[in-house]
Amino acid sequence: MEIRSLQSLDYDILIPQINDWWGGRDMAGMLPELFFQHFKNTSLIAEEDDEITGFLIGFLSQDQSDEAYIHFVGVHPDYRKKDIGKTLYEKFFAKVKMADRKIIRSITSPVNKTSIAFHQKMGFVIERGDKTVDGVAVKANYDGFGIDRVLFKKELK
Amino acid sequence: MEIRSLQSLDYDILIPQINDWWGGRDMAGMLPELFFQHFKNTSLIAEEDDEITGFLIGFLSQDQSDEAYIHFVGVHPDYRKKDIGKTLYEKFFAKVKMADRKIIRSITSPVNKTSIAFHQKMGFVIERGDKTVDGVAVKANYDGFGIDRVLFKKELK
Repeated sequence: MEIRSLQSLDYDILIPQINDWWGGRDMAGMLPELFFQHFKNTSLIAEEDDEITGFLIGFLSQDQSDEAYIHFVGVHPDYRKKDIGKTLYEKFFAKVKMADRKIIRSITSPVNKTSIAFHQKMGFVIERGDKTVDGVAVKANYDGFGIDRVLFKKELK
Repeated sequence: MEIRSLQSLDYDILIPQINDWWGGRDMAGMLPELFFQHFKNTSLIAEEDDEITGFLIGFLSQDQSDEAYIHFVGVHPDYRKKDIGKTLYEKFFAKVKMADRKIIRSITSPVNKTSIAFHQKMGFVIERGDKTVDGVAVKANYDGFGIDRVLFKKELK
């Protein structure tokens, strides 16, 4: 597996297949081209034999000079359980550290238990929310009306 | 009319009404909370009598150190034709200039003739595209499959 920085041309390759990676869910809307034009230097592509097997879209917070944010991560369904997500996160942590930042934030859906467990394994803690869903603290309406989100925070050592 | 910086709490006020501003179109998906957490210092709110009458979501490009980008602008339907959009753009231009950047990019839909005329009036030029729709140069599939966009560029003097 190779990890490289995102390039603008990756957009045209990823967008047509991205909904399939999520079993048909409409995810392409979370990936407007702006991320492929303006946040390439903190976003990553995993590749194997010239095929994209995963990606991470992240950026350095413009407002909080000590923070970075992971917006969206995906792994090709045929390449799961191979630690591609873990490798992408670790590479992002290294980039954030190089930029002299210490806090990384990320969010997920409260129903996505795999993602919650993954973040906890990667050293994220769940932030205090304003309500509890399935025993997990969430911030209500975080990603739109009725769309609650689990908020994660990790402090780099 | 007052113009101020975006605040995180504006999210809870804007999100429930934003689709109505566009006559019921689903626009809330273009405004994930990340913009209200990490790009407040280049995003703007227009207010009148404590009511939000308009907003501009913009950021400084992380990759291109001379560029800024306008992601999303809205004006409350009851407050149109009052130059709120123009005022928000001018205030954003000033912020970009203060950050010592000279190029501003923005996009719109080829069917949105009002937006195209507005951008041209504000000094944007239409960038070369890869096809033509209704006599306007567009970049095909720019915001997803089949979603063409007109690309604008303005150079600050």
